Amino acid sequence: MGVKMGVNEQVSARESATGDVDEYMDALGRRARAASRAIARAGTAVKNAALVAIAKAIERDAPALREANARDVERARANGQDPAFIDRLTLSDKALKSMIEGLHQVAALPDPVGEIGNLKFRPTGIQVGQMRVPLGVIGIIYESRPNVTIDAAALCLKSGNATILRGGSEAIESNTALARAIGEGLAAAGLPADVVQVVETTDRAAVGKLITMTGYVDVIVPRGGKSLIARLMADARVPMIKHLDGICHVYVDDRADLDKALTITDNAKTHRYGTCNTMETLLVARGIAERALPVLGRRFAEKQVELRADPASKAILQAAGIERVVEATPEDWSTEYLAPILAVKVVDGLDEAIDHINQYGSAHTDSIVTEDHDRAMRFLREVDSASVMVNASTRLADGFEFGLGAEIGISNDKLHARGPVGLDGLTSLKYVVLGHGEVRQ
Amino acid sequence: MGVKMGVNEQVSARESATGDVDEYMDALGRRARAASRAIARAGTAVKNAALVAIAKAIERDAPALREANARDVERARANGQDPAFIDRLTLSDKALKSMIEGLHQVAALPDPVGEIGNLKFRPTGIQVGQMRVPLGVIGIIYESRPNVTIDAAALCLKSGNATILRGGSEAIESNTALARAIGEGLAAAGLPADVVQVVETTDRAAVGKLITMTGYVDVIVPRGGKSLIARLMADARVPMIKHLDGICHVYVDDRADLDKALTITDNAKTHRYGTCNTMETLLVARGIAERALPVLGRRFAEKQVELRADPASKAILQAAGIERVVEATPEDWSTEYLAPILAVKVVDGLDEAIDHINQYGSAHTDSIVTEDHDRAMRFLREVDSASVMVNASTRLADGFEFGLGAEIGISNDKLHARGPVGLDGLTSLKYVVLGHGEVRQ
Repeated sequence: MGVKMGVNEQVSARESATGDVDEYMDALGRRARAASRAIARAGTAVKNAALVAIAKAIERDAPALREANARDVERARANGQDPAFIDRLTLSDKALKSMIEGLHQVAALPDPVGEIGNLKFRPTGIQVGQMRVPLGVIGIIYESRPNVTIDAAALCLKSGNATILRGGSEAIESNTALARAIGEGLAAAGLPADVVQVVETTDRAAVGKLITMTGYVDVIVPRGGKSLIARLMADARVPMIKHLDGICHVYVDDRADLDKALTITDNAKTHRYGTCNTMETLLVARGIAERALPVLGRRFAEKQVELRADPASKAILQAAGIERVVEATPEDWSTEYLAPILAVKVVDGLDEAIDHINQYGSAHTDSIVTEDHDRAMRFLREVDSASVMVNASTRLADGFEFGLGAEIGISNDKLHARGPVGLDGLTSLKYVVLGHGEVRQ
Repeated sequence: MGVKMGVNEQVSARESATGDVDEYMDALGRRARAASRAIARAGTAVKNAALVAIAKAIERDAPALREANARDVERARANGQDPAFIDRLTLSDKALKSMIEGLHQVAALPDPVGEIGNLKFRPTGIQVGQMRVPLGVIGIIYESRPNVTIDAAALCLKSGNATILRGGSEAIESNTALARAIGEGLAAAGLPADVVQVVETTDRAAVGKLITMTGYVDVIVPRGGKSLIARLMADARVPMIKHLDGICHVYVDDRADLDKALTITDNAKTHRYGTCNTMETLLVARGIAERALPVLGRRFAEKQVELRADPASKAILQAAGIERVVEATPEDWSTEYLAPILAVKVVDGLDEAIDHINQYGSAHTDSIVTEDHDRAMRFLREVDSASVMVNASTRLADGFEFGLGAEIGISNDKLHARGPVGLDGLTSLKYVVLGHGEVRQ
């Protein structure tokens, strides 16, 4: 093939042999690799100009974008997709406005590329430091959420990377229309069109190919539910920045301030049920359980949160007259509910809390509520998660809240970036050596 | 199995079904994971005490270590291994002394674990920073070089990681003896024996299992030749910190100082032929080729380095009366010789040099010789390699020379650590949040 496929050609691509999709993806990869050189050396002003021009194109083309999106939505409805799916797919006025604002915000962020740090003289006379550089080519795989197309393109562009975007097939017309706006913005700034490429075939083989093109793609950032990520993990050969699930804990220590414990656990669980940094298990120290559980439990009961409690906490909760308490099964400790359900367990103290979190958690975000300094410090150090907190809601684990300006996702891998991943996470550090003729002795 | 196998049991393991090796490795992994918690929270003094105690045990047991090693060497000789192999396998007095010194040096390095940086207040009132933490469990796969057993164990221990060491089968008796010294050192410091485990079966299936135990092993660091690494890359599911090859370039710009060019290219090529940071291709700008090539070429000819030259450089070298010049084939641009052979090419200038390096190099270490500031800065930014240099020998790309104190290897991956990997590269950063009851609005 060697050229981008338009929407009209999708059907043929979908029906074609995998070989053709392979060729198509190879061509995309080759062009992305070439474009990655251009975007890596592009200056800050050029990248910002492209971001602003993309925002303008979206603003101007809003009616056409909404029409393309309406066709996607209609097809998704006809295919029987549920309201939550339709909601994520729909490009409302508000969604378009938020895209445009996002582009301006990313333009306003400091450019991480080229920053040199830690430049020190060595006894030989050379000066050694580290320069922040783009990763190269980033593949983004996501579900039918057209806003991700713009969010991801903006962050990758600003961090000097070329991008291959592969959104859910139900959003194909929206994404193709957004791709035109992106292309226009790149052209206005004098950047090659291949800096951001949207995969314009809905053939699933394209994903399989994308995650194995180690010669062209430096990293894959998958955004979506656990089943998508798990499927990709099984076959990927390209490294991924990802998180599989968020089984987040709040541990209420026996030296906790009860007001803080109530505010934090309420927010961590009920602020939003479907997010990865929502608390899924509440651990309460035995020494405070009789006092704390009735208070916390009543708040959850008021908000219709079902409690899956171990025998010790169940006894206390029921004695306090709290309904909607069922006995937890071992499975509950490793379940991400994404729903008004909370696992509850009484633990002996800090050691058991840390052990429980390290064993059953997903290394995402965990928080301790305590007034005790030593215990707070031990929790921070010994809980092996991407974000560890003292007296704060797990819901604060977020790129904006952490001051990264934006985030492409949250990683609970251990290599490279952990936790919320912003522009820095889309770059790496290379060594720079400034010499004057020095050699190895 | 579930318990460590002694040397006497190796034969049965080697002949056993893969299932038994799987079980053996699983048990190793499970124990490493458990031990990783203990070593992660161990204090600096405890880790240093273990390192010093290992050094003492090696010093005391030197005669027994040499005997075990002599049996390995004898068997390797009988198997017809070449002198270079025997040399790497042999634990000479000097090698033992250098191991002992290495342990003391690592003990003297600052402890990276627990360091918190960049702690800033956010508008919500939380304070967000990043804490350096161990990766967890590190698997080291290496050839028959017993010194790696101690080097790797020391660096992983100091950085708070548990380690599974799998050395070449020809060094099995040496490694088993060293494992006893390591175990003694750990015990002396009150650390669990499983913090450092040596795989005591020579069954190859153990390697295949180790690189796929994603539940127990966080990262694999392979040390060895290209063929070993390539084999591992094909099957690994655990992330690797590695480099495949070192095709390093020196580009002599037409604004180069000719004295520096001679000193640097001589050192980069001839200081040691077999190392990964040795120059394999020399690029010379057309504008200086007539002046530079005869001078540089004569020095290489004196040192019996064979030159594989493109037509333009061949003509100049031969006109200058330099022998041992053969015409380069396209293959030469992507060959790591590890020998007294050098590819030579005349390029139009900086752009062609950068393109050539990015196309044919291995993203390891590349250097420009120039007096021109803008060109130096462009080379640093645009050459996409782990270490980029101005007016310095590629041989300086090394953990000690860069000030890391020690190195576990050199990475030319793009994620996580690039270039020489020291203690920091064996750790990652997690977010820490210090709050006072803050929640998400």
